[in-house]
Amino acid sequence: MSSGWQDRGKWGGFKPTPESIPPSGVVFRFRSDARKIPVNVTPLNPINFLLRAAFIVPNKLAIAHPDVPHPSFYTFAVWAQRVQNLAYALIERGIQPGDRVAVIAPNSPMIADAHHAIIAARAVITPINIRLTKDSVDYILEHSGSKVILVDHAFVHLVENAKVPVIVCNDTGRPDDPYEQLLASGRRFSRERGWLGLDMEMNEDAAASLCYTSGTTGRPKGVISTLRGSYLAAIANAYETRMDRNSIYLWILPMFHACGWTYPWAITFAFSTQITIRSADPDLIWHHIINSGVTHYCAAPLSSIISSHRARRLDDSRSITAVVAGAAPTSSLIGQLEKLKIRVTHVYGLTLAKLSSFEVCSETYGPFTRNYHRPAREVDETKGLADEDSRIMARQGHAFVTSDEARVVYQAKEGDPEDAELKDVPDDGVTRGEVVVRGNIKNRFTSIIAIPRPRRKHFAEVILGVAIWLFRNPDGSIMILDRIKDLIISGGENASSLSIEQELSRHPDVLEVTVEDSTFRPKDRHAAFEKELKKYAAQVLPGFARPEWVEVVDELPKTSTGKVLKHVLRGRAAKL
Amino acid sequence: MSSGWQDRGKWGGFKPTPESIPPSGVVFRFRSDARKIPVNVTPLNPINFLLRAAFIVPNKLAIAHPDVPHPSFYTFAVWAQRVQNLAYALIERGIQPGDRVAVIAPNSPMIADAHHAIIAARAVITPINIRLTKDSVDYILEHSGSKVILVDHAFVHLVENAKVPVIVCNDTGRPDDPYEQLLASGRRFSRERGWLGLDMEMNEDAAASLCYTSGTTGRPKGVISTLRGSYLAAIANAYETRMDRNSIYLWILPMFHACGWTYPWAITFAFSTQITIRSADPDLIWHHIINSGVTHYCAAPLSSIISSHRARRLDDSRSITAVVAGAAPTSSLIGQLEKLKIRVTHVYGLTLAKLSSFEVCSETYGPFTRNYHRPAREVDETKGLADEDSRIMARQGHAFVTSDEARVVYQAKEGDPEDAELKDVPDDGVTRGEVVVRGNIKNRFTSIIAIPRPRRKHFAEVILGVAIWLFRNPDGSIMILDRIKDLIISGGENASSLSIEQELSRHPDVLEVTVEDSTFRPKDRHAAFEKELKKYAAQVLPGFARPEWVEVVDELPKTSTGKVLKHVLRGRAAKL
Repeated sequence: MSSGWQDRGKWGGFKPTPESIPPSGVVFRFRSDARKIPVNVTPLNPINFLLRAAFIVPNKLAIAHPDVPHPSFYTFAVWAQRVQNLAYALIERGIQPGDRVAVIAPNSPMIADAHHAIIAARAVITPINIRLTKDSVDYILEHSGSKVILVDHAFVHLVENAKVPVIVCNDTGRPDDPYEQLLASGRRFSRERGWLGLDMEMNEDAAASLCYTSGTTGRPKGVISTLRGSYLAAIANAYETRMDRNSIYLWILPMFHACGWTYPWAITFAFSTQITIRSADPDLIWHHIINSGVTHYCAAPLSSIISSHRARRLDDSRSITAVVAGAAPTSSLIGQLEKLKIRVTHVYGLTLAKLSSFEVCSETYGPFTRNYHRPAREVDETKGLADEDSRIMARQGHAFVTSDEARVVYQAKEGDPEDAELKDVPDDGVTRGEVVVRGNIKNRFTSIIAIPRPRRKHFAEVILGVAIWLFRNPDGSIMILDRIKDLIISGGENASSLSIEQELSRHPDVLEVTVEDSTFRPKDRHAAFEKELKKYAAQVLPGFARPEWVEVVDELPKTSTGKVLKHVLRGRAAKL
Repeated sequence: MSSGWQDRGKWGGFKPTPESIPPSGVVFRFRSDARKIPVNVTPLNPINFLLRAAFIVPNKLAIAHPDVPHPSFYTFAVWAQRVQNLAYALIERGIQPGDRVAVIAPNSPMIADAHHAIIAARAVITPINIRLTKDSVDYILEHSGSKVILVDHAFVHLVENAKVPVIVCNDTGRPDDPYEQLLASGRRFSRERGWLGLDMEMNEDAAASLCYTSGTTGRPKGVISTLRGSYLAAIANAYETRMDRNSIYLWILPMFHACGWTYPWAITFAFSTQITIRSADPDLIWHHIINSGVTHYCAAPLSSIISSHRARRLDDSRSITAVVAGAAPTSSLIGQLEKLKIRVTHVYGLTLAKLSSFEVCSETYGPFTRNYHRPAREVDETKGLADEDSRIMARQGHAFVTSDEARVVYQAKEGDPEDAELKDVPDDGVTRGEVVVRGNIKNRFTSIIAIPRPRRKHFAEVILGVAIWLFRNPDGSIMILDRIKDLIISGGENASSLSIEQELSRHPDVLEVTVEDSTFRPKDRHAAFEKELKKYAAQVLPGFARPEWVEVVDELPKTSTGKVLKHVLRGRAAKL
């Protein structure tokens, strides 16, 4: 670990702007009118994690952004001052409690700042996917009613002609950067009143974020999460992945995706150091894995991490915790990551989805289940997880510690959903149902602002769910079979595309596979491999689930979060 | 680790009562009227940790009680059933939500059950110190209004002539034990409705426990804690001490003491295994440290753990996390524990105390600060902590992750405490003040039921505190100098007995030391050692803080939680 920024070569050479340097004697408390709130109540608010880190470990490196022309490095004390500056700057620009502030940026210090500063200003962060079309961005800006836009210099084209103030960040950390000038203006506006000049949010159920789906099917839909929910979900994420002050978190998951699954706050909770990289380039990821002491990352099941030519098994002294979700990882992928000493914590969650039988959408602050059955002590270090272990690890598992049970249910009674009776499926690993969860932490279904139908505030029994077909194993863990819309009807049977993919991906020559329902048969290509794969399928899959044709491609079309774009494939298949 | 119960010899031979065996298909949810509560709200309740453990790791050993004539061992599934049985039994006996249930027992499965079952029944656990006089116990039973008493067979004399039903536990786990018969009656009463037959407590601010001080100065005082506070404090304790499913927790701290600092719930949160021993016998403690794979314990700073003839440095593969509080550990004690590979996490908290200038009492669910400055990676394994590190570790440190900042303040304006202005002392390591804390988690000062004066609901600024004289170091950590009542006035200076003790205890021949203010001079004893110690004191202490006389004793008088009984010493000193 002598190369890279950890030798403080780059870090030591970097100077934060003068306005980033905190004065002496900082008080890390918000102003609170104690007469309005009993002394035994301080509302849950994830901003407190950063203030606490800045108080207890002020000189620890909080955030490193090394791979840009002007790298930047901030300690917790300096970072907290920058966050405070941004909060004041937003207030100076008229941001009121509850207002939405849009952020359009790749992983970089600015969007990390925004996750803390916007809630410090009692406003609501609205992160926007940088890969959306301008049309979708326009829709979200309008729909969210965002009052100010923070935008990275590479995505200014997405906010042309915006009706509200736009502040551009050139991602340089230098005094002439417009974003740094914004922070400097906040510092001046604060008149050094510090944190005590900012009001504590008294209502822990106030909104923290407003996140939108990527809108692959229709308009993006938005979901509001709360401070309390974000606080508790962040704690659960840090605990479940064993993050602590010795951890170094690499940002592969885009922070704009469901607020980075609450990791912006989980990292400060744990006093961990974070590294931001602007794109999930596999070579750059491996550079940091090898040289920067990375201990944790979150990501979709990225096969590119395995196929990178820089991929290699880590030293004996190290391993990495990879928190994988976004799409169901195959057991094959899990096994290959384990061989590199990248230990998979398979989690599952959703930003917004619809239970098939209900007009209900939900969000779970990123992950809310994890697979608990990895027999950590029994892993053969030379081989990674045994075959069976990888299969078990591919299950979605059990609800997080701050969540209630994740149930698998079916609708026992037809008719008005209000009166629908949901029954749990038996734990037989066969009977299929849909997943429903209940918030133990007010972190489910806090608000849906994009669904026009009248919404019910209460449900007969449960609650939230996703159109996902799954079952519960005898050990109580849940296992996703498929999204209901991806089911393949074949010979009168429901074939799960996911389980077909799971099996085919175990073939040693298959890097990734996606299975799609189609009556078309494309012209023969890669005939030998097709034959081989069909033979393999005949050994591992029942007749109705075997592929009728195989297409070998260089790359699969994917969303920014690593999900295969099945509807694109459908289009391609139709044209074959 | 081949001896002891871990080889499953004893464990395998133990059979739980038939009523402890759960039926198949248990649902780990309480009944909830979903129409009364939004789907995004499941109130925080630490009972959920046990239900979740029983669901996810049903066959893991939850609790071992090996050192009695009839040892008992329960898995999480079986233990959860027993807890459910007890909850039903209490309800059958007329226990209503909010009722108090007294528990008088040493560390044993029964008092562990009670911490879960009583809140499952929506009642309030009132643990009573087994070392109190019958008069004090009578007072607490009357004052708390306890409706039922669960008592261990060895302490039946404390509840003779009680006015409410008493159930005796013979601590055998066998069907003829009256306590087991109680559980069996609960199982019958449940009619196998299981957890779904018990109501979910909808109000997370409902009382969880009512704990009393030991009443060394006046009547015992009682403090109520809430479900929400207990839940969050338990998570903080598990996180701060890095407890997980591989942890084995040894009960040295009495569970009756401030609900075992919320560890009954922290342990189930973490899926850890716990071992109960009825008394903190140093040899038995070392038996388990050596043979049972203990990873964690909480305790007062027990010098007996070091002086035990069985004490020895642990194998290279192991170390133990000792969570130490109850009295300020000396840096010498910390250093000696570190040499045995017992890593001290020094925490600080209080059950109930009084801010000197306010009529306010408080409780903090056990620990709410910890010392964060242990340079874990720099410890010389052969020597333990360096001298300076031990001194730093002896500080009380910083507030827990789910707590707000712990402040050190002084009253800037005399007069009505309602209008008193509290100012923070500078971070100079010199200026002295008193500690005040604010609950980030509703876990401070939830209720005081034993103070007759009218209580204010809100305070001008802050809040809670203890009559403790302390300062804040330049690194922000707090350091206790003394309880104000233990200050020694010498030559016009305030001498802190604690800092004198800290220095004297560093002498290699001193096991423990306590310093007491007295104008009497006892007759000379151990003259040579007295001379030696005075010489040592002259090197390390200022003139006004040096002892005028020294008495060498075999043992110091202590409370059940390891605090030196200074008032007993005062009495002794007066008679010398």
